[in-house]
Amino acid sequence: MSELPPVRPGMVVGILGGGQLGRMLALAAAELGLSCHIYCPDPKSPAFAVAAARTVAPYEDEAALAAFAAAVDVVTYEFENVPIATARFLAERVTLLPSPHSLEVAQDRFLEKDLMAGLGIPVAGFAEVTKQGDIYSALARTGRPAILKTRRLGYDGKGQALIRGGDDPVSAWRAIGEVPSILESFVPFEREVSVVIVRGRDGELKAFDIAENTHSGGILVETRVPAALPPQAAAAAISLAARIAEALDHVGVLAVETFVVATAVDPAEKRFLVNEIAPRVHNSGHWTSDACLCSQFEQHIRAICGWPLGDPTRHSDAVMSNLIGDQIAAWPTIAAEPGARLHVYGKAETLPGRKMGHITRLKPRRNS
Amino acid sequence: MSELPPVRPGMVVGILGGGQLGRMLALAAAELGLSCHIYCPDPKSPAFAVAAARTVAPYEDEAALAAFAAAVDVVTYEFENVPIATARFLAERVTLLPSPHSLEVAQDRFLEKDLMAGLGIPVAGFAEVTKQGDIYSALARTGRPAILKTRRLGYDGKGQALIRGGDDPVSAWRAIGEVPSILESFVPFEREVSVVIVRGRDGELKAFDIAENTHSGGILVETRVPAALPPQAAAAAISLAARIAEALDHVGVLAVETFVVATAVDPAEKRFLVNEIAPRVHNSGHWTSDACLCSQFEQHIRAICGWPLGDPTRHSDAVMSNLIGDQIAAWPTIAAEPGARLHVYGKAETLPGRKMGHITRLKPRRNS
Repeated sequence: MSELPPVRPGMVVGILGGGQLGRMLALAAAELGLSCHIYCPDPKSPAFAVAAARTVAPYEDEAALAAFAAAVDVVTYEFENVPIATARFLAERVTLLPSPHSLEVAQDRFLEKDLMAGLGIPVAGFAEVTKQGDIYSALARTGRPAILKTRRLGYDGKGQALIRGGDDPVSAWRAIGEVPSILESFVPFEREVSVVIVRGRDGELKAFDIAENTHSGGILVETRVPAALPPQAAAAAISLAARIAEALDHVGVLAVETFVVATAVDPAEKRFLVNEIAPRVHNSGHWTSDACLCSQFEQHIRAICGWPLGDPTRHSDAVMSNLIGDQIAAWPTIAAEPGARLHVYGKAETLPGRKMGHITRLKPRRNS
Repeated sequence: MSELPPVRPGMVVGILGGGQLGRMLALAAAELGLSCHIYCPDPKSPAFAVAAARTVAPYEDEAALAAFAAAVDVVTYEFENVPIATARFLAERVTLLPSPHSLEVAQDRFLEKDLMAGLGIPVAGFAEVTKQGDIYSALARTGRPAILKTRRLGYDGKGQALIRGGDDPVSAWRAIGEVPSILESFVPFEREVSVVIVRGRDGELKAFDIAENTHSGGILVETRVPAALPPQAAAAAISLAARIAEALDHVGVLAVETFVVATAVDPAEKRFLVNEIAPRVHNSGHWTSDACLCSQFEQHIRAICGWPLGDPTRHSDAVMSNLIGDQIAAWPTIAAEPGARLHVYGKAETLPGRKMGHITRLKPRRNS
């Protein structure tokens, strides 16, 4: 390398959000000799315990944001619902990556689908629903069954309503709160896979092996790697993710949740429909911390700091299971399990549905 | 498990010493949901940046030590030169592991050798040298060449003098400062290997695969795993380390540096002579962070917290190289190297001889 990366050991990475993703980013940054400053309104944020500095303030507090910007060398975020105004305010004062543009697109299911459709990336049929009356023309485009989703702030299955044949679409509109929405054709997918990709400041791209997800009640339960995909299908899915990252001029990790659909002609032939993107490290990439040379967290830190990307080689097969709510109580048993790595997030309170930790079970890599 | 371990997620691990080992212990504790409080006199300690709490005070400050003891649920240490009085003062107030006894033995080369000889563990010939006049009778026991070493505070090759045939032993005595010492027969070893073992509060024992070390000027340069040892020889070396851990009633990681000596009769047959022990995580175990399911740091935290020990299975072959002094300047090149993991310790200043980071190069595990 002819010149030094812009953010070097001893310098400070600012992270918006102090949850488990912020915590794992801070741990990865520490391994590289970088110091972290966490900004989060919640004084009990688990990331504070592993960072050199903290700011406890609302995301709208401009004085606190300006002081934060002055104290760090780069800013990133652990969640995509950072207010756009906050991101823009910071981006005027310090390098913020991924850019406010990545954030804006990922925050809005309609902008997201519209971008992908514009790139020719296969997605489910969709239509914008801004007012109640839009829903009939939208259904005419998507067919039934279809899913009505709020454009913004949906996660873990919240803000969604299914419209089947015979259902009154207006009750779906009411159920999601009569807010700007997107109607999407229901995809009878075989599996959902995640492509976790990282793009550097210089446009360098690296992808982790594709993993397969299982959800329950809209929450990720398990991620399994490798996904059962033929090599050429895996390569095709990675290339879709790469096109999205390039179109956004994205810097950092990008997680692309993709449906795998069997084609009618040949069941061995697979089609991909991209479902949604997250402009950040993602729960479906947690297995990389235990099964890869360089984890998604380290890749993200490397990318935003202008470092060369790490080696995403996977040394083991892995199954990652979330520990949600009371499931964390099983930690002493899990801690004794051979072949497993336990991660506990250090959250102050156990609540139903709250992600409290995860476990990665490793096996020697099969030659696949 | 029928009862909960004594130190549980959300509780606080106190660590004496804020260098890179304390930092890596704190990172491992964080992955398990434990919080860390670092005690170190140096306000620039690199471990502070990854811990929830810090105390900057001398090791002799009883008020600070008492407050520290009251704020934590268990105490451990990252270096064996913690003053014994400090360890005893804390141990009266809070669980301190490994115990002051492990510390006392490891601090004194004579007590260390004497313990091992008493256990029937093979060590180089040795004799105590308390005053100048002792050196002649000591040489009569060890023969020449021999090495005169200070009993206390020697590390990285400091406090040692070689006495060859023809050398005046009194100059060696003067060179090391005329302090209580031990004279040891010079061992013409073929290789030096490290056995890194961990013992739990309940006596459970686990060992990492044996690694082979290369030193330069008394400082560890490289650790390579697996060591080139036949399986039965490796098992024998691990059993020596286990006997030492049991004799000390040691809890936590114990590193045992062992010389491998070819026997005169059959060059393929190996003998082991134990050189020294460290009652803590050790530089020669850094490779475990990248090549094993559970690292030496996590094992140490599990042991002192009363958790079941982790799975030390090694998934990859590894070569760990220290980055000493200015070698750290090569980090941008190393960061770009495939198959490698870079660790930077976040030290404020680069000094000659100072360990600034390390790099672990991984390869798929050979079936050995």
